[in-house]
Order: sequence, then structure tokens, then C-alpha cells
Amino acid sequence: MTDVNTLGEFGLIEHLTHSFPLRQPTSLKGIGDDAAVIDCGARCALVSTDMLVEGIHFDLAYTPLKHLGYKAIVVNLSDIYAMNAHPKQVLVSIAISSKYTVEALEELYAGIRAACEKYEVDLVGGDTTSSPRGMVISVTAVGEAEKKRIAYRNGARPGDLICVTGDLGAAYLGLQILEREKRIWQDNPSVQPDLEGQAYLIGRQLKPEARRDMIEAFEKNDLVPTAMIDISDGLASEIFHLCKQSGTGALIEESGVPIHPEAQLMALKFRLDPITCALSGGEDYELLFTIDPRDTDKIRFLPDIYIAGEMLAPDAGIKLSTKGGKLHDLKAQGWRHF
Amino acid sequence: MTDVNTLGEFGLIEHLTHSFPLRQPTSLKGIGDDAAVIDCGARCALVSTDMLVEGIHFDLAYTPLKHLGYKAIVVNLSDIYAMNAHPKQVLVSIAISSKYTVEALEELYAGIRAACEKYEVDLVGGDTTSSPRGMVISVTAVGEAEKKRIAYRNGARPGDLICVTGDLGAAYLGLQILEREKRIWQDNPSVQPDLEGQAYLIGRQLKPEARRDMIEAFEKNDLVPTAMIDISDGLASEIFHLCKQSGTGALIEESGVPIHPEAQLMALKFRLDPITCALSGGEDYELLFTIDPRDTDKIRFLPDIYIAGEMLAPDAGIKLSTKGGKLHDLKAQGWRHF
Repeated sequence: MTDVNTLGEFGLIEHLTHSFPLRQPTSLKGIGDDAAVIDCGARCALVSTDMLVEGIHFDLAYTPLKHLGYKAIVVNLSDIYAMNAHPKQVLVSIAISSKYTVEALEELYAGIRAACEKYEVDLVGGDTTSSPRGMVISVTAVGEAEKKRIAYRNGARPGDLICVTGDLGAAYLGLQILEREKRIWQDNPSVQPDLEGQAYLIGRQLKPEARRDMIEAFEKNDLVPTAMIDISDGLASEIFHLCKQSGTGALIEESGVPIHPEAQLMALKFRLDPITCALSGGEDYELLFTIDPRDTDKIRFLPDIYIAGEMLAPDAGIKLSTKGGKLHDLKAQGWRHF
Repeated sequence: MTDVNTLGEFGLIEHLTHSFPLRQPTSLKGIGDDAAVIDCGARCALVSTDMLVEGIHFDLAYTPLKHLGYKAIVVNLSDIYAMNAHPKQVLVSIAISSKYTVEALEELYAGIRAACEKYEVDLVGGDTTSSPRGMVISVTAVGEAEKKRIAYRNGARPGDLICVTGDLGAAYLGLQILEREKRIWQDNPSVQPDLEGQAYLIGRQLKPEARRDMIEAFEKNDLVPTAMIDISDGLASEIFHLCKQSGTGALIEESGVPIHPEAQLMALKFRLDPITCALSGGEDYELLFTIDPRDTDKIRFLPDIYIAGEMLAPDAGIKLSTKGGKLHDLKAQGWRHF
């Protein structure tokens, strides 16, 4: 008997699903990208689904239900944006134990509604059922895009520029603060949590946003990234996905990886290396994409986009060039949930 | 604080989702039917999702994982067929605790694969994650249909004939047998389960099929049901949904409700009323649909379709006419999961 931990999350998915062929002519893209792509004529439907499990993906000790509902939607929309597509509909299934009240669920759905309003997507379906313990939320997002504008993970070529939006590592550091305050509170329930001045980092953890603005900017500037993925498991893990599927190597410049000053400071307080937090932290829901170098002018004046490196030939491997001028192999740590 | 049980499953969904408007012009149908309908031009995409929770929807004491995987797919395809549409793709998310081995998951996916092959649908996505306890499976099915062939729940009119496919109550009685043998085995683990001669009833519970054949027969005979729903919660519950959404009453004839002889016999062995099992049993995944009486000839020679009653004006209520000639109010019991 083989423990599920031996394969890791991605290895397990690959092991279980490698024998499933795509037979339907409308199945343009199956497992292995941010979303499945279904041919509907000139336009395509994109479908992505994610499951959030209490005690694994969220801790209700410090996660307000309204934020949880908001985040559950946003992380799924992020998968659709990562295909350079527009999310239009969501379906939300929840399993809850009888410890949850109607009022608690109203909070959760208030967050879901706020996200649907902000991102202009419709809640069109789902399922509500009971669970013996805890809460499970499964969200399916449906989007649309012109076929020729879809950005897959496998389109990058050596020489393409590697770009990152926003800043990285903040969501991870927000989580470290929340976990620290939870431990303090568990040891001494009379101590109030000290979250003063940490709004940015905690907000990045509890209420992330998806980069709809980037997809709209690409459209306005007539840019289609050669490859794209959203950064949910950390930059290091995501660049591995792009390289593996595109058949390339990559060079990431430490100096090109955007880190917010507050994340920088907090990392040092926790005695963590800021670049490690940025590379392996996860849950930032920023976009990692590659562009043809001839398109450089199209992003030059777009705010919040950083050139973090270059795609290389496959035999170059996947490297990090440090600020000190050293070259390291990049390690894809990502999250280990099992 | 309000207990979630006070509203019931459908009341809770309605309470939580009533304030969500549909804003996207492509959202043709949102919550409240078997599947959401998304406009893609001449054709529509249909999306449906269901969550199965260990200890609530399945008991691994008597459910082989391969059957579970098969059933998880089939019950979702049934929702797409219930719109008179063709499922083409599925996405499968699972959350599992570390007690599951890779081999156990291979069994589950072997069942998923068998269903995908039989119904010619592609597995195109999903999510695999861990859970603190037990297993949760969430399946999303995507289908397609010509806009004018889609059958909603709200299209029935007084005078339409009520039709049922297959036979009802067998899945519920299969479950009673499995639960009985589990109790016997728990009391005395040396006793082997006595499932001899119960293959039909147990098969209906553990390995249901979806009525793809009916959708194909409707197409061949140029028939579009005026309303349709799949029978997952029992005929009584489903006819309530059709009547509520169509704004009609209904008369169900007990003599028109198809019950398999083995279900009839087993109900009596369990001292249950066979018609109650058929009306409230659930999990048969047959189709309940209504047709314009002028279309009667189109179903006359189709096998496995039974005329079970007639839609009435709304003030007539929802009635059951018994074999003894009595008229009762029909009660929608369905399943109570909370």
C-alpha cells in the first residue's frame, strides 16, 4: 500500500489522471492548466474548480466567514484570469456540519455576494449539504475568451521575458502573523491579538484580489502573453509548471522579484529570508506570465508589472540569480497539503 | 441564532441565494434547475455540480470505491440529461484524509474512468487536496444543447402528461438491504453479508445509470419535454419542484408509478409500503418529465416510459390517486441531510 504523501499533490493528480484521454472534439484543454478550455465556436468556455477544506485551507479561529466567502470566489476567478479570459459565472457548493447557524452561512454568502458584485460574475448554481464535521467549500468558475487570446502554460519560448504582477510573499507573512496571534491567544485567552499596523499583510492573506485589471490592460494593449499561470503556490512552484509545460529553462533575477516593504520588514522580524517568502510563500494570486520580447513596449508603461527574468533553453535548468551575483538552482517547494 | 435544520436543504439554498441577481447576458438560467444554462450562441453550455460527503452520502463500509467513483460521475451526468442536454466534460475534486492509500484512489478513479468511457465524457479538470477526516468528492459536469431543445423545470402546463422512466424505489430498497447487512455484520463480524439474489436492488443503489438513452430517443422522435427533472430525491419531491416552478398542480396515479417486482417484494419484506418507497425513496436517477398531450404518439412506442399522471391547474394542488380510488395530498419528503 502506498501512502498518498509519497507522490505529492501534483504527482498524485498526474498518477490518477494520466490514463484519461480527451475524446470530445470540444475539449481543447483538459487537466494541467489553470482551467479547462471548451470550444464553443469563435469563443471558448473556460472552467476551473477548487476545493477549500476547513482545517487545511482555512482556520475559522482567525478567518471571518465573510472574508472566507470572498476569498473562495476570488481564488477561482484568478484561475480564469490566468488563462487571459473573463470569468462570468460561478457555482458554489458547501458542506457544513450542524454547528453552523443560518446567520454564519449568511456571513459566508455575504462575502460570496461581495466578490460576485466586484468581479461582475453571476452565482448560477451549486449544492448545499451537510458534513459530519467542519466545512468544505467547492467553487467552480466559468469564463469566456476568444480562442486566439487564451494564454496556456505551454506557450513560452526561450528568450521570452518572465513577468510578475503586484508583489509576492505578503499573503504568506500575513498568515504567519495570524498563526502567531492564534498561538498567543491559545496560551492566554485574555490577551487580545496584536494586529496593529499589519492591515496590508493580513489583508493579502484574508482578502486577496484577482488581477482582472491586468487582463483588461492586456486587451487594451493588444497583448497576449505567450504563457501564463496564477501564483497560488509560490513563484518557484509556478515557474516550474511553466517551464515543464513549455519545455524551457528559466532564469529568475532576485532583484526583479517584487516584494512589498512591509513584507520585507515582517520577514526579517520572523527571521525569514524575504526572497524565500516571495518565492515559496504562495496565496498571493498575482499573475506570472511570459511575453515575446518584441512585446516589451506593450508592458513598459503598465503599472504593477515587473520583469523578473527570462525563459531559457531547457538544458539551462531553472536558476535564481541572487542580488549577490550567485547562481542557484531554484527549488519548487510550493505547499504540501498532505 | 438559527439552526440550519429549520429551513431544510432547499429552503436554505433559497434563503442564501435569493439576493443574487443574474447580471451577465449569457446567464440564461441560474440557481433552481438541474443545471445552469450559459448562452454560447446557437448552442448553450450547461453546468451542474454536486458534492458527495463520506458519512452523509456514502458509507465506505459497503460502497466499493470503484462504484463510488462511477456513481459520483453518473449522478452529475443525470443533471445534464435532465435538461435534455448532452454531457461532454466533467471536473472532479476530491479531499481525502491520509488514511487513503494511492491504491484506494486508483480504485476510485477506475470507477470515474469507467463512467467517463461509458457516457463518452472527458475528465478535464479538478482539484486534489487533503482533508482532516474522511472523503469529499465534488463533481462538475459540463454539457451542451441547442437552445431550443433545453427542457427546464418551469415549462409544464395544466393538461400536460406526467411521464416517468424506468422504475422507482429500487435504489432506496438496495440501501435498506446494505444497511441491514452492515448492522448484522457490526453485531457479529463473523457473519458474511447475505446479498444473494439482491443484485438488482443493490446495483440500483451502488451503480446507478443515467438516462442518456432517453435523451437520444427524444431527439430521434423530435420530442422536447415541456419540463423535466431527474429523480434524485424521490418522485414526490421532484413533482413538487416541477409544479412550483411551472405554476401548476398535478395528479399522480398510483397505478402509473413503475415499481420493479423485486422492489415490490423487498418492500413487503421490510414491512414498507412499495408506493411510499417509490414516491419518497430517491437515488433512482430516472427522469420525470411532462409532455404536451399532442406529443403522446411520440412516446407511445418508446420502451421504459410510463405515464404517471397529469399536470393540473395550480388550485388543484398536488394529489395522489391510489389504486383503491382514494385521493390524497402528496407529501414531498425527499431526503433530509441536515
